[in-house]
Amino acid sequence: MADIAIDDFHPGTVWLVGAGPGDPELLTRKAERLLTRAEIVFYDALVGPAILELAGHAELVPVGKRSGRHSKEQASIDKLLVAAALTGRRVVRLKGGDPSIFGRSMEELTALRAAGVTARICPGVTAASAAAASAGISLSLRGIARRVQFVTAHSRRGAAADLDWQALADPDATLAVYMGREAAGEVSRALIAAGLPGSTPVLIACNVSLPAEKLLRTRLDLLPLATLAFAQDLPTLILVGDAVAADGVGLPASSATVAAPERA
Amino acid sequence: MADIAIDDFHPGTVWLVGAGPGDPELLTRKAERLLTRAEIVFYDALVGPAILELAGHAELVPVGKRSGRHSKEQASIDKLLVAAALTGRRVVRLKGGDPSIFGRSMEELTALRAAGVTARICPGVTAASAAAASAGISLSLRGIARRVQFVTAHSRRGAAADLDWQALADPDATLAVYMGREAAGEVSRALIAAGLPGSTPVLIACNVSLPAEKLLRTRLDLLPLATLAFAQDLPTLILVGDAVAADGVGLPASSATVAAPERA
Repeated sequence: MADIAIDDFHPGTVWLVGAGPGDPELLTRKAERLLTRAEIVFYDALVGPAILELAGHAELVPVGKRSGRHSKEQASIDKLLVAAALTGRRVVRLKGGDPSIFGRSMEELTALRAAGVTARICPGVTAASAAAASAGISLSLRGIARRVQFVTAHSRRGAAADLDWQALADPDATLAVYMGREAAGEVSRALIAAGLPGSTPVLIACNVSLPAEKLLRTRLDLLPLATLAFAQDLPTLILVGDAVAADGVGLPASSATVAAPERA
Repeated sequence: MADIAIDDFHPGTVWLVGAGPGDPELLTRKAERLLTRAEIVFYDALVGPAILELAGHAELVPVGKRSGRHSKEQASIDKLLVAAALTGRRVVRLKGGDPSIFGRSMEELTALRAAGVTARICPGVTAASAAAASAGISLSLRGIARRVQFVTAHSRRGAAADLDWQALADPDATLAVYMGREAAGEVSRALIAAGLPGSTPVLIACNVSLPAEKLLRTRLDLLPLATLAFAQDLPTLILVGDAVAADGVGLPASSATVAAPERA
Protein backbone atom coordinates (compact mmCIF):
# COMPACT_ATOMS: atom_id res chain seq x y z
CA MET A 1 0.00 0.00 0.00
CA ALA A 2 2.67 2.42 1.05
CA ASP A 3 4.83 1.46 -1.91
CA ILE A 4 1.98 1.96 -4.34
CA ALA A 5 1.54 5.50 -3.07
CA ILE A 6 5.24 6.25 -3.36
CA ASP A 7 5.51 4.67 -6.78
CA ASP A 8 2.85 7.14 -7.79
CA PHE A 9 5.52 9.83 -7.76
CA HIS A 10 5.91 9.88 -11.51
CA PRO A 11 8.13 12.35 -13.36
CA GLY A 12 6.22 15.50 -14.17
CA THR A 13 3.89 15.29 -11.18
CA VAL A 14 3.63 17.50 -8.12
CA TRP A 15 3.03 16.49 -4.51
CA LEU A 16 1.82 19.17 -2.11
CA VAL A 17 3.37 17.94 1.11
CA GLY A 18 2.58 18.98 4.67
CA ALA A 19 5.84 19.49 6.56
CA GLY A 20 4.10 19.51 9.94
CA PRO A 21 4.64 22.12 12.66
CA GLY A 22 8.43 22.33 12.49
CA ASP A 23 10.05 19.41 14.31
CA PRO A 24 11.44 17.10 11.60
CA GLU A 25 10.30 14.16 13.73
CA LEU A 26 6.71 15.30 13.17
CA LEU A 27 6.93 14.83 9.43
CA THR A 28 4.96 11.82 8.26
CA ARG A 29 6.79 8.79 6.94
CA LYS A 30 5.13 9.46 3.59
CA ALA A 31 6.37 13.04 3.49
CA GLU A 32 9.88 11.83 4.24
CA ARG A 33 9.80 9.32 1.38
CA LEU A 34 8.37 11.86 -1.05
CA LEU A 35 11.14 14.29 -0.10
CA THR A 36 13.73 11.59 -0.62
CA ARG A 37 12.45 10.99 -4.15
CA ALA A 38 11.88 14.61 -5.12
CA GLU A 39 14.07 16.23 -7.76
CA ILE A 40 13.05 19.76 -6.87
CA VAL A 41 11.48 21.10 -3.67
CA PHE A 42 9.72 24.46 -3.36
CA TYR A 43 9.46 25.32 0.34
CA ASP A 44 7.90 27.97 2.55
CA ALA A 45 10.14 30.19 4.65
CA LEU A 46 8.90 28.53 7.84
CA VAL A 47 10.15 25.09 6.81
CA GLY A 48 13.45 24.65 8.60
CA PRO A 49 16.84 23.29 7.46
CA ALA A 50 16.53 20.03 9.42
CA ILE A 51 13.51 19.13 7.31
CA LEU A 52 15.12 20.21 4.06
CA GLU A 53 18.08 17.95 4.81
CA LEU A 54 15.74 15.02 4.29
CA ALA A 55 15.35 16.04 0.66
CA GLY A 56 18.71 14.54 -0.19
CA HIS A 57 19.79 15.56 -3.66
CA ALA A 58 16.82 17.68 -4.68
CA GLU A 59 17.19 21.25 -5.82
CA LEU A 60 15.83 23.46 -3.03
CA VAL A 61 13.88 26.59 -3.95
CA PRO A 62 12.61 28.93 -1.22
CA VAL A 63 9.26 30.58 -1.93
CA GLY A 64 6.91 32.66 0.19
CA LYS A 65 7.44 35.06 3.02
CA ARG A 66 7.25 34.42 6.74
CA SER A 67 3.84 35.98 7.19
CA GLY A 68 1.27 37.04 4.66
CA ARG A 69 1.79 36.83 0.96
CA HIS A 70 0.59 38.90 -1.95
CA SER A 71 -1.42 37.31 -4.71
CA LYS A 72 1.27 38.39 -7.15
CA GLU A 73 3.72 36.23 -5.26
CA GLN A 74 1.22 33.36 -5.22
CA ALA A 75 0.85 33.61 -8.99
CA SER A 76 4.61 33.41 -9.45
CA ILE A 77 4.77 30.33 -7.20
CA ASP A 78 2.05 28.73 -9.30
CA LYS A 79 4.10 29.40 -12.42
CA LEU A 80 7.26 27.95 -10.90
CA LEU A 81 5.45 24.74 -9.95
CA VAL A 82 3.89 24.33 -13.37
CA ALA A 83 7.17 25.02 -15.14
CA ALA A 84 9.09 22.51 -13.02
CA ALA A 85 6.49 19.80 -13.60
CA LEU A 86 6.38 20.43 -17.33
CA THR A 87 10.13 19.79 -17.55
CA GLY A 88 9.34 16.28 -16.32
CA ARG A 89 10.75 16.54 -12.83
CA ARG A 90 9.33 15.06 -9.63
CA VAL A 91 8.20 18.15 -7.76
CA VAL A 92 7.48 18.57 -4.05
CA ARG A 93 5.73 21.70 -2.80
CA LEU A 94 6.53 21.68 0.90
CA LYS A 95 4.17 23.62 3.15
CA GLY A 96 4.26 24.23 6.90
CA GLY A 97 1.66 22.26 8.88
CA ASP A 98 -1.12 20.62 6.87
CA PRO A 99 -1.72 21.78 3.28
CA SER A 100 -5.51 21.87 3.76
CA ILE A 101 -5.48 24.20 6.77
CA PHE A 102 -4.56 27.75 5.78
CA GLY A 103 -2.00 26.43 3.29
CA ARG A 104 -3.31 28.17 0.17
CA SER A 105 -3.30 24.80 -1.55
CA MET A 106 -6.25 25.34 -3.83
CA GLU A 107 -4.62 28.19 -5.75
CA GLU A 108 -1.70 25.93 -6.62
CA LEU A 109 -3.83 22.86 -7.33
CA THR A 110 -6.02 24.86 -9.66
CA ALA A 111 -3.05 26.27 -11.57
CA LEU A 112 -1.49 22.83 -11.89
CA ARG A 113 -4.70 21.24 -13.08
CA ALA A 114 -5.25 23.99 -15.61
CA ALA A 115 -1.81 23.18 -17.01
CA GLY A 116 -2.62 19.47 -17.19
CA VAL A 117 -0.21 18.58 -14.38
CA THR A 118 -1.11 15.77 -11.97
CA ALA A 119 -1.02 17.03 -8.39
CA ARG A 120 -1.63 15.17 -5.15
CA ILE A 121 -1.62 16.05 -1.47
CA CYS A 122 0.20 14.49 1.47
CA PRO A 123 -1.41 15.68 4.73
CA GLY A 124 0.57 16.85 7.74
CA VAL A 125 0.27 17.52 11.45
CA THR A 126 -1.29 20.94 11.90
CA ALA A 127 0.17 23.44 14.38
CA ALA A 128 -2.85 23.38 16.71
CA SER A 129 -2.45 19.64 17.26
CA ALA A 130 1.26 20.06 17.97
CA ALA A 131 0.70 22.99 20.34
CA ALA A 132 -1.87 20.96 22.29
CA ALA A 133 0.55 18.04 22.46
CA SER A 134 3.37 20.25 23.78
CA ALA A 135 1.10 21.82 26.38
CA GLY A 136 -0.34 18.49 27.46
CA ILE A 137 -3.92 19.47 26.70
CA SER A 138 -6.70 18.28 24.42
CA LEU A 139 -8.40 20.62 21.96
CA SER A 140 -11.69 18.80 22.43
CA LEU A 141 -12.84 18.02 25.94
CA ARG A 142 -15.94 16.12 26.97
CA GLY A 143 -18.47 18.41 28.58
CA ILE A 144 -16.25 21.46 27.99
CA ALA A 145 -15.26 21.70 24.33
CA ARG A 146 -17.38 19.73 21.89
CA ARG A 147 -16.33 21.93 19.00
CA VAL A 148 -12.83 22.79 17.80
CA GLN A 149 -12.41 25.63 15.35
CA PHE A 150 -9.51 27.07 13.41
CA VAL A 151 -9.26 30.53 11.91
CA THR A 152 -6.45 32.59 10.52
CA ALA A 153 -6.00 36.22 11.39
CA HIS A 154 -2.75 37.08 9.77
CA SER A 155 -1.05 40.31 9.08
CA ARG A 156 -3.26 42.15 6.59
CA ARG A 157 -4.65 45.07 8.54
CA GLY A 158 -8.26 44.44 9.45
CA ALA A 159 -8.13 40.88 8.16
CA ALA A 160 -9.81 39.73 11.36
CA ALA A 161 -12.64 42.21 10.90
CA ASP A 162 -14.76 40.00 8.68
CA LEU A 163 -14.67 36.95 10.92
CA ASP A 164 -17.91 35.78 12.52
CA TRP A 165 -16.99 36.64 16.11
CA GLN A 166 -20.35 35.52 17.45
CA ALA A 167 -19.67 31.98 16.26
CA LEU A 168 -16.08 32.14 17.49
CA ALA A 169 -16.96 33.43 20.97
CA ASP A 170 -18.39 30.11 22.12
CA PRO A 171 -17.58 29.06 25.69
CA ASP A 172 -18.15 25.43 24.66
CA ALA A 173 -15.55 25.45 21.90
CA THR A 174 -11.78 25.63 21.58
CA LEU A 175 -10.55 28.24 19.13
CA ALA A 176 -7.17 28.11 17.41
CA VAL A 177 -6.04 31.35 15.79
CA TYR A 178 -3.30 30.68 13.23
CA MET A 179 -0.82 33.45 12.49
CA GLY A 180 -2.46 35.31 15.35
CA ARG A 181 0.35 37.47 16.64
CA GLU A 182 -0.41 40.77 14.94
CA ALA A 183 -4.15 40.38 15.40
CA ALA A 184 -3.95 39.43 19.10
CA GLY A 185 -5.41 42.73 20.23
CA GLU A 186 -8.29 42.53 17.81
CA VAL A 187 -8.93 38.87 18.72
CA SER A 188 -9.08 39.67 22.42
CA ARG A 189 -11.34 42.71 22.04
CA ALA A 190 -13.70 41.09 19.55
CA LEU A 191 -14.13 37.85 21.50
CA ILE A 192 -14.81 39.73 24.75
CA ALA A 193 -17.23 42.06 22.96
CA ALA A 194 -19.02 38.99 21.57
CA GLY A 195 -19.48 37.63 25.07
CA LEU A 196 -16.48 35.52 26.08
CA PRO A 197 -15.33 36.25 29.65
CA GLY A 198 -12.02 38.11 29.96
CA SER A 199 -10.91 35.29 32.23
CA THR A 200 -11.17 32.68 29.44
CA PRO A 201 -7.94 30.65 29.41
CA VAL A 202 -5.53 31.30 26.55
CA LEU A 203 -2.36 29.59 25.41
CA ILE A 204 0.15 31.52 23.32
CA ALA A 205 2.39 29.09 21.44
CA CYS A 206 5.46 30.31 19.56
CA ASN A 207 7.81 28.19 17.44
CA VAL A 208 5.58 25.18 18.05
CA SER A 209 7.47 21.87 18.30
CA LEU A 210 10.89 23.45 17.68
CA PRO A 211 13.73 23.55 20.23
CA ALA A 212 12.96 27.28 20.66
CA GLU A 213 9.29 26.54 21.41
CA LYS A 214 7.72 28.88 23.96
CA LEU A 215 4.33 28.35 25.57
CA LEU A 216 2.59 30.93 27.68
CA ARG A 217 -0.64 30.46 29.56
CA THR A 218 -2.62 33.60 30.15
CA ARG A 219 -6.21 34.82 29.87
CA LEU A 220 -8.19 36.49 27.14
CA ASP A 221 -8.12 40.03 28.56
CA LEU A 222 -4.34 39.82 29.00
CA LEU A 223 -3.73 38.38 25.54
CA PRO A 224 -2.69 41.63 23.79
CA LEU A 225 -0.14 42.57 26.44
CA ALA A 226 1.13 39.03 26.82
CA THR A 227 1.58 38.60 23.08
CA LEU A 228 3.46 41.87 22.84
CA ALA A 229 5.85 40.87 25.62
CA PHE A 230 6.19 37.22 24.77
CA ALA A 231 5.75 36.50 21.07
CA GLN A 232 8.04 39.22 19.67
CA ASP A 233 8.31 38.44 15.96
CA LEU A 234 7.92 34.68 16.33
CA PRO A 235 5.42 32.50 14.44
CA THR A 236 2.53 32.36 16.88
CA LEU A 237 -0.56 30.25 17.38
CA ILE A 238 -3.19 31.28 19.93
CA LEU A 239 -5.51 28.77 21.60
CA VAL A 240 -8.60 30.09 23.39
CA GLY A 241 -11.05 28.19 25.60
CA ASP A 242 -11.60 26.39 28.86
CA ALA A 243 -9.98 23.20 27.50
CA VAL A 244 -6.68 25.11 27.50
CA ALA A 245 -6.73 25.22 31.31
CA ALA A 246 -7.34 21.49 31.77
CA ASP A 247 -3.74 20.53 32.21
CA GLY A 248 -3.12 16.82 32.26
CA VAL A 249 0.66 16.70 32.23
CA GLY A 250 1.98 20.16 33.02
CA LEU A 251 3.83 22.46 30.71
CA PRO A 252 7.42 21.68 29.82
CA ALA A 253 10.25 23.57 31.46
CA SER A 254 10.56 26.13 28.68
CA SER A 255 7.12 27.53 29.33
CA ALA A 256 6.01 30.36 31.50
CA THR A 257 2.80 31.73 32.92
CA VAL A 258 1.66 35.30 33.18
CA ALA A 259 0.11 35.94 36.56
CA ALA A 260 -3.60 36.56 36.28
CA PRO A 261 -5.37 38.94 38.64
CA GLU A 262 -7.78 37.32 41.09
CA ARG A 263 -11.37 37.39 39.96
CA ALA A 264 -13.38 40.09 41.67
CA MET B 1 16.52 17.53 18.93
CA ALA B 2 14.72 14.46 17.69
CA ASP B 3 17.01 12.24 19.71
CA ILE B 4 16.39 14.22 22.86
CA ALA B 5 12.68 13.70 22.45
CA ILE B 6 13.09 9.98 21.89
CA ASP B 7 15.55 9.58 24.75
CA ASP B 8 12.81 11.03 26.90
CA PHE B 9 11.04 7.69 26.67
CA HIS B 10 12.09 6.58 30.13
CA PRO B 11 10.89 3.39 31.76
CA GLY B 12 7.67 3.98 33.63
CA THR B 13 6.45 6.77 31.37
CA VAL B 14 3.52 6.88 28.95
CA TRP B 15 3.35 8.44 25.49
CA LEU B 16 -0.09 9.14 24.06
CA VAL B 17 0.64 8.74 20.37
CA GLY B 18 -1.47 9.81 17.40
CA ALA B 19 -1.56 6.99 14.86
CA GLY B 20 -2.95 9.22 12.13
CA PRO B 21 -5.92 8.40 9.90
CA GLY B 22 -5.03 4.78 9.12
CA ASP B 23 -2.37 4.57 6.41
CA PRO B 24 0.86 3.52 8.17
CA GLU B 25 2.70 5.96 5.90
CA LEU B 26 0.81 8.80 7.58
CA LEU B 27 2.30 8.02 10.97
CA THR B 28 4.85 10.62 12.02
CA ARG B 29 8.51 9.66 12.22
CA LYS B 30 8.32 10.33 15.95
CA ALA B 31 5.36 8.00 16.41
CA GLU B 32 7.24 5.30 14.54
CA ARG B 33 10.28 5.64 16.81
CA LEU B 34 8.18 5.67 19.96
CA LEU B 35 6.44 2.48 18.79
CA THR B 36 9.79 0.88 18.09
CA ARG B 37 10.93 1.59 21.64
CA ALA B 38 7.67 0.75 23.43
CA GLU B 39 7.46 -2.30 25.66
CA ILE B 40 3.67 -2.34 25.75
CA VAL B 41 1.17 -0.71 23.38
CA PHE B 42 -2.50 -0.12 24.18
CA TYR B 43 -4.34 0.53 20.94
CA ASP B 44 -7.80 1.53 19.75
CA ALA B 45 -9.79 -0.87 17.59
CA LEU B 46 -9.44 1.42 14.58
CA VAL B 47 -5.64 1.21 14.58
CA GLY B 48 -4.81 -1.39 11.93
CA PRO B 49 -2.34 -4.29 11.86
CA ALA B 50 0.09 -2.56 9.48
CA ILE B 51 0.65 0.14 12.09
CA LEU B 52 0.95 -2.32 14.95
CA GLU B 53 3.65 -4.18 13.04
CA LEU B 54 5.87 -1.15 13.58
CA ALA B 55 5.77 -1.81 17.30
CA GLY B 56 8.29 -4.60 16.96
CA HIS B 57 8.56 -6.62 20.14
CA ALA B 58 6.07 -4.73 22.30
CA GLU B 59 3.16 -6.46 23.96
CA LEU B 60 0.01 -5.37 22.09
CA VAL B 61 -3.18 -4.78 24.06
CA PRO B 62 -6.41 -3.85 22.26
CA VAL B 63 -8.67 -1.43 24.15
CA GLY B 64 -11.79 0.45 23.17
CA LYS B 65 -14.59 -0.28 20.77
CA ARG B 66 -15.03 0.82 17.22
CA SER B 67 -17.50 3.57 17.97
CA GLY B 68 -18.53 5.12 21.25
CA ARG B 69 -17.22 3.99 24.58
CA HIS B 70 -18.74 3.90 28.03
CA SER B 71 -17.08 5.75 30.88
CA LYS B 72 -16.69 2.45 32.68
CA GLU B 73 -14.55 1.21 29.83
CA GLN B 74 -12.56 4.46 29.87
CA ALA B 75 -11.90 4.01 33.58
CA SER B 76 -10.58 0.53 33.00
CA ILE B 77 -8.28 1.79 30.25
CA ASP B 78 -6.99 4.45 32.63
CA LYS B 79 -6.21 1.73 35.19
CA LEU B 80 -4.42 -0.43 32.65
CA LEU B 81 -2.20 2.48 31.59
CA VAL B 82 -1.34 3.41 35.16
CA ALA B 83 -0.62 -0.20 36.12
CA ALA B 84 1.67 -0.74 33.12
CA ALA B 85 3.60 2.44 33.84
CA LEU B 86 3.99 1.62 37.52
CA THR B 87 5.66 -1.68 36.63
CA GLY B 88 8.37 0.42 35.00
CA ARG B 89 7.60 -0.29 31.37
CA ARG B 90 7.75 2.10 28.44
CA VAL B 91 4.07 2.50 27.54
CA VAL B 92 2.52 3.75 24.31
CA ARG B 93 -1.17 4.56 24.17
CA LEU B 94 -1.90 4.54 20.46
CA LYS B 95 -4.95 6.52 19.31
CA GLY B 96 -6.44 6.97 15.86
CA GLY B 97 -5.86 10.39 14.29
CA ASP B 98 -4.59 13.11 16.60
CA PRO B 99 -4.88 12.60 20.38
CA SER B 100 -6.11 16.17 20.94
CA ILE B 101 -9.06 15.97 18.52
CA PHE B 102 -11.84 13.77 19.92
CA GLY B 103 -9.27 11.36 21.33
CA ARG B 104 -10.43 11.39 24.96
CA SER B 105 -6.84 12.16 25.95
CA MET B 106 -7.55 14.28 28.99
CA GLU B 107 -9.24 11.47 30.91
CA GLU B 108 -6.12 9.34 30.55
CA LEU B 109 -3.68 12.16 31.19
CA THR B 110 -5.51 13.11 34.36
CA ALA B 111 -5.52 9.54 35.65
CA LEU B 112 -1.83 9.15 34.90
CA ARG B 113 -0.92 12.41 36.56
CA ALA B 114 -2.95 11.53 39.62
CA ALA B 115 -0.88 8.36 39.89
CA GLY B 116 2.37 10.29 39.57
CA VAL B 117 3.12 8.88 36.12
CA THR B 118 4.84 11.08 33.52
CA ALA B 119 2.77 11.28 30.35
CA ARG B 120 3.48 13.04 27.09
CA ILE B 121 1.70 13.47 23.76
CA CYS B 122 2.87 12.85 20.19
CA PRO B 123 0.47 14.59 17.77
CA GLY B 124 -0.86 12.94 14.63
CA VAL B 125 -2.54 13.72 11.32
CA THR B 126 -6.25 14.13 11.96
CA ALA B 127 -8.81 12.43 9.71
CA ALA B 128 -10.18 15.69 8.28
CA SER B 129 -6.75 16.63 6.92
CA ALA B 130 -6.33 13.20 5.37
CA ALA B 131 -9.81 13.23 3.84
CA ALA B 132 -9.14 16.63 2.29
CA ALA B 133 -5.82 15.37 0.92
CA SER B 134 -7.45 12.30 -0.64
CA ALA B 135 -10.21 14.39 -2.20
CA GLY B 136 -7.81 17.01 -3.51
CA ILE B 137 -9.48 19.85 -1.64
CA SER B 138 -8.53 22.37 1.02
CA LEU B 139 -10.51 22.71 4.25
CA SER B 140 -9.84 26.45 4.31
CA LEU B 141 -10.35 28.45 1.16
CA ARG B 142 -9.71 32.12 0.63
CA GLY B 143 -12.95 34.04 0.21
CA ILE B 144 -15.01 30.88 0.77
CA ALA B 145 -14.00 29.19 4.02
CA ARG B 146 -12.11 31.31 6.50
CA ARG B 147 -13.10 29.08 9.37
CA VAL B 148 -12.63 25.32 9.75
CA GLN B 149 -14.51 23.54 12.50
CA PHE B 150 -14.54 20.03 13.85
CA VAL B 151 -17.29 18.39 15.86
CA THR B 152 -18.06 14.83 16.83
CA ALA B 153 -21.54 13.40 16.60
CA HIS B 154 -21.01 9.79 17.44
CA SER B 155 -23.35 7.05 18.34
CA ARG B 156 -24.98 8.05 21.61
CA ARG B 157 -28.58 8.76 20.69
CA GLY B 158 -29.22 12.48 20.63
CA ALA B 159 -25.53 13.26 21.10
CA ALA B 160 -25.79 15.80 18.30
CA ALA B 161 -28.73 17.52 19.99
CA ASP B 162 -26.65 19.76 22.21
CA LEU B 163 -24.41 21.10 19.46
CA ASP B 164 -24.64 24.80 18.55
CA TRP B 165 -26.14 24.34 15.09
CA GLN B 166 -26.36 28.08 14.50
CA ALA B 167 -22.59 28.37 14.76
CA LEU B 168 -22.09 25.22 12.68
CA ALA B 169 -24.43 26.30 9.87
CA ASP B 170 -22.05 28.92 8.52
CA PRO B 171 -21.80 29.19 4.73
CA ASP B 172 -18.33 30.70 5.17
CA ALA B 173 -16.91 27.75 7.10
CA THR B 174 -15.97 24.16 6.45
CA LEU B 175 -17.43 21.69 8.94
CA ALA B 176 -15.91 18.28 9.64
CA VAL B 177 -18.18 15.87 11.50
CA TYR B 178 -16.16 13.06 13.07
CA MET B 179 -17.85 9.72 13.68
CA GLY B 180 -20.77 11.18 11.77
CA ARG B 181 -22.35 8.12 10.17
CA GLU B 182 -25.16 7.42 12.63
CA ALA B 183 -25.92 11.11 13.10
CA ALA B 184 -25.97 11.93 9.37
CA GLY B 185 -29.73 12.42 9.31
CA GLU B 186 -29.67 14.70 12.34
CA VAL B 187 -26.70 16.66 10.94
CA SER B 188 -28.46 17.25 7.62
CA ARG B 189 -31.79 18.26 9.16
CA ALA B 190 -30.27 20.50 11.83
CA LEU B 191 -27.90 22.33 9.47
CA ILE B 192 -30.68 22.97 6.94
CA ALA B 193 -33.03 24.10 9.72
CA ALA B 194 -30.31 26.49 10.90
CA GLY B 195 -30.08 28.05 7.46
CA LEU B 196 -27.57 26.15 5.31
CA PRO B 197 -28.89 25.52 1.77
CA GLY B 198 -29.79 21.92 0.98
CA SER B 199 -27.48 22.24 -2.01
CA THR B 200 -24.41 22.80 0.19
CA PRO B 201 -21.63 20.46 -1.02
CA VAL B 202 -20.84 17.48 1.19
CA LEU B 203 -18.08 14.87 1.10
CA ILE B 204 -18.65 11.52 2.80
CA ALA B 205 -15.30 9.88 3.52
CA CYS B 206 -15.10 6.28 4.74
CA ASN B 207 -11.93 4.38 5.72
CA VAL B 208 -9.91 7.55 5.13
CA SER B 209 -6.39 6.94 3.78
CA LEU B 210 -6.77 3.12 3.77
CA PRO B 211 -6.77 0.96 0.62
CA ALA B 212 -10.53 0.55 1.14
CA GLU B 213 -11.05 4.32 1.26
CA LYS B 214 -14.32 5.48 -0.28
CA LEU B 215 -15.16 9.11 -1.04
CA LEU B 216 -18.59 10.29 -2.08
CA ARG B 217 -19.51 13.79 -3.11
CA THR B 218 -23.12 14.72 -2.55
CA ARG B 219 -25.15 17.60 -1.10
CA LEU B 220 -26.52 18.34 2.32
CA ASP B 221 -30.14 17.40 1.64
CA LEU B 222 -29.04 14.05 0.18
CA LEU B 223 -26.62 13.30 3.03
CA PRO B 224 -28.89 10.94 5.03
CA LEU B 225 -29.79 8.79 2.03
CA ALA B 226 -26.26 8.84 0.65
CA THR B 227 -24.75 7.85 4.00
CA LEU B 228 -27.21 4.99 4.38
CA ALA B 229 -26.37 3.65 0.93
CA PHE B 230 -22.65 4.36 0.94
CA ALA B 231 -21.14 4.28 4.41
CA GLN B 232 -22.68 1.03 5.67
CA ASP B 233 -20.90 0.31 8.97
CA LEU B 234 -17.61 1.96 7.98
CA PRO B 235 -15.78 4.63 10.00
CA THR B 236 -17.08 7.81 8.42
CA LEU B 237 -16.09 11.46 8.36
CA ILE B 238 -18.44 14.03 6.83
CA LEU B 239 -17.18 17.33 5.38
CA VAL B 240 -19.71 20.11 4.74
CA GLY B 241 -19.20 23.42 2.95
CA ASP B 242 -18.54 25.14 -0.34
CA ALA B 243 -14.80 24.41 -0.10
CA VAL B 244 -15.66 20.74 -0.60
CA ALA B 245 -16.76 21.48 -4.16
CA ALA B 246 -13.59 23.32 -5.15
CA ASP B 247 -11.84 20.40 -6.69
CA GLY B 248 -8.24 21.05 -7.61
CA VAL B 249 -7.11 17.58 -8.59
CA GLY B 250 -10.18 15.40 -9.02
CA LEU B 251 -11.19 12.46 -6.90
CA PRO B 252 -9.23 9.22 -7.15
CA ALA B 253 -10.66 6.30 -9.08
CA SER B 254 -12.19 4.67 -6.01
CA SER B 255 -14.58 7.53 -5.47
CA ALA B 256 -18.09 8.04 -6.70
CA THR B 257 -20.60 10.84 -6.92
CA VAL B 258 -24.30 10.79 -6.17
CA ALA B 259 -26.23 12.64 -8.84
CA ALA B 260 -27.74 15.82 -7.48
CA PRO B 261 -31.07 17.10 -8.76
CA GLU B 262 -30.96 20.32 -10.73
CA ARG B 263 -31.72 23.39 -8.70
CA ALA B 264 -35.28 24.60 -9.23
